[in-house]
Amino acid sequence: MYKVKVYVTLRESVLDPQGNAVKGALHSLSFNAVQDVRIGKYLELKIDQDVADIDTFVKEMCEKLLTNVVIEDYRYDVEEVVAQ
Amino acid sequence: MYKVKVYVTLRESVLDPQGNAVKGALHSLSFNAVQDVRIGKYLELKIDQDVADIDTFVKEMCEKLLTNVVIEDYRYDVEEVVAQ
Repeated sequence: MYKVKVYVTLRESVLDPQGNAVKGALHSLSFNAVQDVRIGKYLELKIDQDVADIDTFVKEMCEKLLTNVVIEDYRYDVEEVVAQ
Repeated sequence: MYKVKVYVTLRESVLDPQGNAVKGALHSLSFNAVQDVRIGKYLELKIDQDVADIDTFVKEMCEKLLTNVVIEDYRYDVEEVVAQ
């Protein structure tokens, strides 16, 4: 089995209102040292071992469904887990 | 400056309806090898250098605002970035 971790983030050029809101809230809780906050998605997927090419498989999932490629970037880590 | 990456995930014992919905959508797009999907938050924060204890600072932010400690777990990475 594969354990895949996908990190989806807004592109640098895209405004992050949610991140700004969290920054404001952190400042109101006296965490004034926080300069910037960017918020994204973190996905953990378990995938069958019999996938021929795991990289292509993950890239296709990301580009077809998991990310909005117009405004988001993604990166991923693949870990092979030996079934007990 | 510190660059901190925070990964917030639902606890294993908590049902993840959003993850299930994404799994269903992936199956409908013929990604049938996907066994499980768990969705969480990924945050990137930039924090001033003059924070005395960065670990305590990050833990407090997570426990006061960034996570719901009843149903979520978090982990984080701290990277020290030398300002150009």
